[in-house]
Parts: sequence; C-alpha cells; structure tokens
Amino acid sequence: MKRLQQLRSRLEEKELDAVLVARLENIRYLSGFTGSTGWLLITHNKALLAVDFRYQEQTKGETTGFEIVQIKGDVPVWLPGIISDLNVKRIGFEADYLPFAVYQQLVQAIKKNQSKSQFVATSGLVESLRTIKEPEELEFILKAAKLTEAAFNYTQTIIRPGIIEKELAWELEKFLRENGSDSLPFELIVASGPNSALPHAKPSQRSILAKEPILIDIGAKANGYCSDLSRTLCLGKPDETFTTIYQVVLGAQFTALAMIEANMDGKTADGLARAVIEESGYGEAFGHGLGHGIGLAAHEPPRLAADSLDLLQDGMVFTIEPGIYIPGWGGVRIEDMVLLEKSKPKEITKAVKGFRDIVLGGIYA
Amino acid sequence: MKRLQQLRSRLEEKELDAVLVARLENIRYLSGFTGSTGWLLITHNKALLAVDFRYQEQTKGETTGFEIVQIKGDVPVWLPGIISDLNVKRIGFEADYLPFAVYQQLVQAIKKNQSKSQFVATSGLVESLRTIKEPEELEFILKAAKLTEAAFNYTQTIIRPGIIEKELAWELEKFLRENGSDSLPFELIVASGPNSALPHAKPSQRSILAKEPILIDIGAKANGYCSDLSRTLCLGKPDETFTTIYQVVLGAQFTALAMIEANMDGKTADGLARAVIEESGYGEAFGHGLGHGIGLAAHEPPRLAADSLDLLQDGMVFTIEPGIYIPGWGGVRIEDMVLLEKSKPKEITKAVKGFRDIVLGGIYA
Repeated sequence: MKRLQQLRSRLEEKELDAVLVARLENIRYLSGFTGSTGWLLITHNKALLAVDFRYQEQTKGETTGFEIVQIKGDVPVWLPGIISDLNVKRIGFEADYLPFAVYQQLVQAIKKNQSKSQFVATSGLVESLRTIKEPEELEFILKAAKLTEAAFNYTQTIIRPGIIEKELAWELEKFLRENGSDSLPFELIVASGPNSALPHAKPSQRSILAKEPILIDIGAKANGYCSDLSRTLCLGKPDETFTTIYQVVLGAQFTALAMIEANMDGKTADGLARAVIEESGYGEAFGHGLGHGIGLAAHEPPRLAADSLDLLQDGMVFTIEPGIYIPGWGGVRIEDMVLLEKSKPKEITKAVKGFRDIVLGGIYA
Repeated sequence: MKRLQQLRSRLEEKELDAVLVARLENIRYLSGFTGSTGWLLITHNKALLAVDFRYQEQTKGETTGFEIVQIKGDVPVWLPGIISDLNVKRIGFEADYLPFAVYQQLVQAIKKNQSKSQFVATSGLVESLRTIKEPEELEFILKAAKLTEAAFNYTQTIIRPGIIEKELAWELEKFLRENGSDSLPFELIVASGPNSALPHAKPSQRSILAKEPILIDIGAKANGYCSDLSRTLCLGKPDETFTTIYQVVLGAQFTALAMIEANMDGKTADGLARAVIEESGYGEAFGHGLGHGIGLAAHEPPRLAADSLDLLQDGMVFTIEPGIYIPGWGGVRIEDMVLLEKSKPKEITKAVKGFRDIVLGGIYA
C-alpha cells in the first residue's frame, strides 16, 4: 500500500484524479498481478485491477487491496462506464507506452459518452517510483545477480576452442533456468571474434576460437527482478589489441565506479567513462550509453547516457557497462550492476574481471 | 521486393507518400532485419532501414534492397531531417503500435523543422499483407508445426502422475529448443486440474494427478515463424464431466473445421463453434475467441472472435481453439493451426486428438 500512497501523492502534484496503468511491470509493481494482459485504474480512494475472463482466477492468489473488475473487449469499450461511475475528470495515461490509436479511441469513447473527463499524457509516473528499490526488491535483485555470477563461473568450466556460440548460450540458459530463473530477462549473448563487434549479437553457429575476444552477456530473473552481467574472455594469450582495449574498458569502468555519486545526472556519469575511452582514441567505438536502471524490467530508468538528465540517487540499481567495438575485429564490454548506497556505487555482481585473472591466467593459457 | 511493391500499392490507395514502420515483425517481413530495434521508412521510390550503431554490422548480412541509415538518439531527433531530404508530405505511421508520446514528439519535431509534412494514423497496413502466406513462409510454419507435434508426442512418453507442471514444461521447452526452435513464441502452458481453468495459466509447482484435465499449449519457431498447438489429456479413465466437456469442445472444433470457408468473417467463424458449446449449456465457459492468425507473430490478424469483421481468405493461417473452463474443476482446450486453401481449412498440426485415442486408450489407463 506504500507504493499506492506514493503514486497518489504524484497524482496530487499533477492534479490528476486517476491514472490508467497499462505497462505490465508497473501493474506488477503496484498490484502484484503477473498476468500478461490487464489494466489498473487508480484514483485517490479506489484501486481497480481490470482483467478479462482468462485472468479472473489468477488475480485471487496474487493481489490484495485491489478491486477486481472483469472486463470484455478493448479498453475503449469498458473504461468509459467505469470513469463515469467513479466521476473522475483528469485521467493520466502512460504516454510512452499507450499506442496512439488506443488514446484516440479512448478520447472518442468518452466524448460519445458525453463525459467531461479528459486524458492527460504522463511520463514515468510509476517508473520513477520503481527506480528507488525497497529492501525486499533488493533481495530478489541480489538473488538474480548471484545466479548470473554462478552461470559465469560455470561458463569458465565448459568454454573451449571449438564450442559453437549457440551451444554455449544454450548451456548457460539451461544452467540459469535449472537453477532458479523462471524465464530470462533477455536473449543471452555469446559472441566471438568479429561477432563480438555487434553489441547486440545473437549467438550464431560460429565456433569460438582461441586468442579472440569472446563477449558473454547474461541475465537471470528472481520473482520478476532481473540481473545483467557482461564479461569478455580470451582463450589463450590475447594479442596486443585485445590487451590494450580490455585495459581501456576496465579503466573506464573503474573510473565510473570510483567517481559516480548521488545527485549526479546520467550524462555526467556517462561522461566519466567516456572521457577515459576518448582519451585512448577509441571514443567513436563506444557507441552506446554507459548503463541503465534494472529491476522488474531489464532496462528501466535511470539512463546513464550522453543525453540523459536522470538524477542518480541512493537506492537506485543500474548497470555500468562501457564497451569498445571494432568492426571486423571484435569488441570488449565489461558490465556490472551497482546499487547506489551512501552516495557511492556498490557492486552487486561480483564475477571476476581483473585482467590478469581472466585473460592472462585464463582457462586455456 | 514483391512485398514492398504490395505495400506501395497500399500507400497509393491511402494517398500516402511514405510509411514509418516500427513493429519488429513488420520490419522483418519487409526487410529481413531481425534486430530488436530499428525503423523502416518506405516511400514510393526509396526503402530505408534505420538502425543505431549496435545493429550496423548485422544489417549487412540480413537485408538486401534497403538503404541502411545509421541513426543516433530517438526517432524525433533523426527522422525530421530525412523527411525533409526526401520531401515526403503525408507519412503513415502504425497507430496501433506507436506510443502516443512518440507521435506527439514527432509532430513537434517536424513543426520545429518548419516542415509541411504530416503524420497519418494507419492500422494494419503491413499486417494485412502478412495475413496471406507465401509458399516460403508456409514452409517455415509447417516446420514449426511439425516440431510442436513432435514435442506433443514426446509429452506422452514422459508425462506421469506426480510430475510437476513446471518440470514437464521445462522438459518440453528443452525438447523444442534442442530440436530446432531458436526461441519460443510464448511461454509454454502445462496446467493440471483446477489450474487448467486458467486459459493462460503459468506452469506451477503443482503435481499432475491422474483422472484430471491436463492442458498442454505449446509452440515453436522456425526462422521467425510460429506454431501453436493445444491438447488436453487425462491420465487414466476420466470422469463423466471430463468426457462430456471434451466431446463438446471437440465437436465445436470439428464443426468449425468443417464449416469455415473463404470470405466468411471472423465473427461468423467464431459463431460456428460457439453455437455448439452454447447448445450444450457451456456457453458462458468459452470466454475467449475461437482463434487467431499466426505467422511471424504468435497472434496476428485475422481474429476469429465474436466482434471480428476480419474476412478469412485463402492463404491465411490461423488457429481454431475452442475451450471450456470451469473454475475449481479445470478446462479443456483443443487447438490446431489451419491453412485456408481452396476455401476450406486444412489442418497444419496433426497431433492426435481423437477422444478414444488419447483419453480412454490413454497413456495411463
């Protein structure tokens, strides 16, 4: 109920009588409902969960404090009646999520109903609450993080020259799923050699070779909460390019870990790591942002990127993941999750990343 | 290029100079690009694929006939410049998909650019092309269907009283993934006893028992194309309720299979099966539509449902899946995929569903 109270304060600030929530992670955060279709309508004194026939039963075990409304058909069909019953005028909606057509149909439906209600675009109303993690949420995040660490350690026992990217990815997926991750937050990445130059590579039929970069990006879920961890390996003694690039990326990450602090914005945080990479001459090869918030969604606010004004605050969990990608050669990314605590980033993922440990004293030296 | 030509005819009909495509299945259908972020802008003589840095490399192997544009930042940042270069005025967008806020930002961005272009809401422009499957697409659909059949046959070799729903679902997932399905089109359903009354149940920690309904709903993917198959089993001799309900559902499905024909609308098709279930007194317990199109998306047009005016046409692939769900007891659903050919539905999935075969002569009789 604390979450609903916080949301209601936001409604008051924005002079809204209600908010319509459609984004699944927001629905889960507020109500506990984990189905794949549903809506919340939250007013200052009511909290409705609207689900169709298929999810009627499921709501009973999952939610408390919500009035369950059984709906039929699309939202423009059933919402106007409820709005009129509750007599709410200014209704916020998730403009970053709701499709244009649904907004338009809603406006037409309430006009037809001769209602004086209006829909007001909002952005990040629930997401902004979600950025600050509660102790119970941190527990699940930690559990998911530990599982990815275990999977990364497992990687080191099965990786070998000749193993196919897809096979290794599938072995890791099985490990994660069989050790507690109900589903995965994203498709795992195992990218070797030139494939690792694709920051979102899909595991391919390529055989992993010695002496090339191997980028592993994995995640798990615990009770809906996600983890995200990237490491770059090399089987056998790497060449100078790898050594240099790895050191630059690790240096960039360490710099960000050391210097990020509360009340810094996402742009400044990103700039800390970017400056290190730029100074080394690889600025152009770091084409993505430094990191992203993580929780019920694998990617959620805050963003750490050159155009982000999001303020980093204690209680936020986000990734720090600088990378350098050279088309034709490959890439190096090192990614950890941190919790901002007492104004400093505290690493949540602990998998080894020291250059000497992994690369030079590596598994296939 | 045939697909682009068809799309361009649609643009002409709607007096559009271009269309902005954001939905991933539509992007894949038109361009071949399989990344998870990208945009198409298609005019009467240009076809652009806009991707950010992360996907730059990937496009080279996947697409032909598209001009690749490297973008940075959100669509309102880079699109206005391209629009102005190409001098396109009326630009369609996918109103059922594009979030309201993105539309609003686009409108503001081109206004700021002093452009006279305007964005026009469209619905199903590419999806309507996708409904009629080409021979090459049918091959992949058939491959995915065969894989689910094989998984269903495998089910019968491992299911036993005492097996936990989640365990069985995971065994089936491994079977599908290890036999060629790169990813799954939806979370597999294994729901037993009362859980089977939840049409979208998640596999739980419940042990499957003898003499109760066990609902299995599985799917696979082949080169992006989905399959979808549901069967309801009973280990040992079922009670009269099960027998009666199973016969009604199977009767409803057979009726739909026999009577659906080309140029029928989705509402009429749904009504054929619904009438059978209503006559048996279970009308209220069939709370979902009769079926849905399937292809690059697990659910796509046409819809077979009480409110659907979609016209069924030769070359369409869709599911026929009547069901009866009794809270507290359980549910029965029988689902097959069909191709509408020479005006009649031809079953694509072939797993056994005869009442005598599965239930009475069952695996645990």
